Amino acid sequence: MLNFDFYNPTRILFGKDRLQGIDRYIPADATVLITYGGGSAKKSGLIDKVKAVLGKRKISEFGGIEPNPRYETLIKAVETVQKEKIDFLLAVGGGSVIDGTKFVALASYYKGNSRDLLNYAFKPIPLDVVGKAVPFGTILTLPATGSEMNSGAVISYEHGKFIVISQLAFPRFSILDPTLTFTLPRNQVANGVIDAFVHTMEQYLTYPVGGRLQDHIAEGILQTLIEIGFTTVAEPENYEARANLVWCATLALNGIVGAGVPQDWATHFIGHELTSLFGIDHGQTLAIVLPAVLEIRREQKRAKLLQYAERVWHMGDGGEEEKIDSAIEKTREFFESLGVKTHLSQYGIGADKIPVIIEQLKAHGMTALSETQDLTLDISRKILERAL
Amino acid sequence: MLNFDFYNPTRILFGKDRLQGIDRYIPADATVLITYGGGSAKKSGLIDKVKAVLGKRKISEFGGIEPNPRYETLIKAVETVQKEKIDFLLAVGGGSVIDGTKFVALASYYKGNSRDLLNYAFKPIPLDVVGKAVPFGTILTLPATGSEMNSGAVISYEHGKFIVISQLAFPRFSILDPTLTFTLPRNQVANGVIDAFVHTMEQYLTYPVGGRLQDHIAEGILQTLIEIGFTTVAEPENYEARANLVWCATLALNGIVGAGVPQDWATHFIGHELTSLFGIDHGQTLAIVLPAVLEIRREQKRAKLLQYAERVWHMGDGGEEEKIDSAIEKTREFFESLGVKTHLSQYGIGADKIPVIIEQLKAHGMTALSETQDLTLDISRKILERAL
Repeated sequence: MLNFDFYNPTRILFGKDRLQGIDRYIPADATVLITYGGGSAKKSGLIDKVKAVLGKRKISEFGGIEPNPRYETLIKAVETVQKEKIDFLLAVGGGSVIDGTKFVALASYYKGNSRDLLNYAFKPIPLDVVGKAVPFGTILTLPATGSEMNSGAVISYEHGKFIVISQLAFPRFSILDPTLTFTLPRNQVANGVIDAFVHTMEQYLTYPVGGRLQDHIAEGILQTLIEIGFTTVAEPENYEARANLVWCATLALNGIVGAGVPQDWATHFIGHELTSLFGIDHGQTLAIVLPAVLEIRREQKRAKLLQYAERVWHMGDGGEEEKIDSAIEKTREFFESLGVKTHLSQYGIGADKIPVIIEQLKAHGMTALSETQDLTLDISRKILERAL
Repeated sequence: MLNFDFYNPTRILFGKDRLQGIDRYIPADATVLITYGGGSAKKSGLIDKVKAVLGKRKISEFGGIEPNPRYETLIKAVETVQKEKIDFLLAVGGGSVIDGTKFVALASYYKGNSRDLLNYAFKPIPLDVVGKAVPFGTILTLPATGSEMNSGAVISYEHGKFIVISQLAFPRFSILDPTLTFTLPRNQVANGVIDAFVHTMEQYLTYPVGGRLQDHIAEGILQTLIEIGFTTVAEPENYEARANLVWCATLALNGIVGAGVPQDWATHFIGHELTSLFGIDHGQTLAIVLPAVLEIRREQKRAKLLQYAERVWHMGDGGEEEKIDSAIEKTREFFESLGVKTHLSQYGIGADKIPVIIEQLKAHGMTALSETQDLTLDISRKILERAL
């Protein structure tokens, strides 16, 4: 097991009818900015319910945070925070709204050009650069990214996605009420299942370091998602299935799964380029890239692929190659059972586009990916060819 | 899945050579009281190493916190804190030292008679009763209770054990260095494995509520403990085994396993009386009581006992009764494989003592135990008879 630090102070209020919690955990004298996305939270009446609970607090709203939230949008929210002396942010939405709100929280007290905050890659922004952030809470409406219980955000700027991490970017609280997600479109739920699944895989499917408990926990999330994935897409109001999806998505990226084990985020990084170049949904890109990564990195990941085959897919018999082949195929079939395609060609993307994707990976410094940092552009090309 | 709140702000520094972390997370101007137990941390040189890292901070020591820490002892530490204007506590030890230090942290600013703080049973002490506590960190030397990452403590006073919980009783940080536990006596390691195992079982082996992820996580901890239990007792310096034990013991009681599911703490409560009446180690009492609880509560726990048999002990074939019998027997054998006895008679306790134990349970209000609060004294008697 590798050494690790674990710290996660976000308070979770999980279950039905938890909205009242925002009154308890937002200071009574706070000036609150409610942030949201394309308007479904507004149309559904959720924003009105939130305002009713906030009562006499002074409230502003900032809507229109888009999927893959853009710097240019968020900077306008920063202006609102500064102008209106906002001292609490309340994100109502999915991962994009929450990620965007984290950036707003960090940028609002930053003295310099807030574009600087995009340049820390995987490193947390030091406290002497940003030592104070606007406190914020979240009301989750889309289970997927895990942003509701971690300190990271992915922000889009020009043709890139930038990872922003800060100890100050943990939500003070997150309200996880599965019923708030019942009205989501089917494809967004499917994408959420895949995002949670792939987050878990990227912290699990590497090489063994004796993190037996971490492995069992990762396998537990994967098995739960396999058990409830189809049901929660097909039966949006099945509370049990949706509650398990919500909790899986949160725990998949709150630090527990990855504590003390190697991590391989290649699937996400290659996927990010597919989103920024072709506008493919984040979850859809992961369903395309993960099976190809597992196939091309078969040797590096052999021991864990076998463990995955045996423990997650319960393959007892057969030779090594057969088990690995079947486990990868089962993964692909699981994604497709949710109605999500797993090949680039199904999105009309052919081999001719691969050089463009490789160029983007190069431009963004994605030249040594994976748990062993030896996944070169040449290997990324092979992955993309396999994903066609 | 039941509604739940989850909140755990303790920072974990896990792995080899993490002692330097105390310099980072204890304020540079703090006056520190180091608390410890019977002296092994002193004899091993650990306290000296800790002092070296603390450098120029003003340091006092309070040793002699006993197993099942007593109110009468802790109140002396409270006097030290008040007299010497201590503003940070550093617990170096196992669950008893950490539990005791939590009580000292809470009692030090309390204006009334600190015995009052023992009377909140399972309820957190309200913030308007104790609104401020001395901040504290821990350096764990015995993996067992999980106290290093939760907000609860068990304090002994006269012939009772009292549960003290407060939101202010989370350690600021805990250093979990598995190598610090290498010198533990064999029986203490075995007790630790059992404590972690039984904590997990008490949050898992109840009745199903659709907490699929919680079940998989609990099963993951149980399986890990079964995989490494014998090894970590037999090979104290096997880092991988010990690291997994340490992390299992912490996660078994940090709130994750029990979030959103029923809990049955009957084994602990009956066990507490065996410790206070006969001086049997806490872990040993659990090994005696758990198998008997499972046998006597077989019908109430049927669905989960079957799940436990199939998922934790991999029993595929056979009828329901046979699987349940085997799973309980396997549990008993696992405890015995660690060198821990599972019958009262092996400690020289016969049927004649059962009325005394029942009297104690009655005196402590333990008359409606279990996940369904219908485990009466009469059923406790049957459990004890089964445990003979």
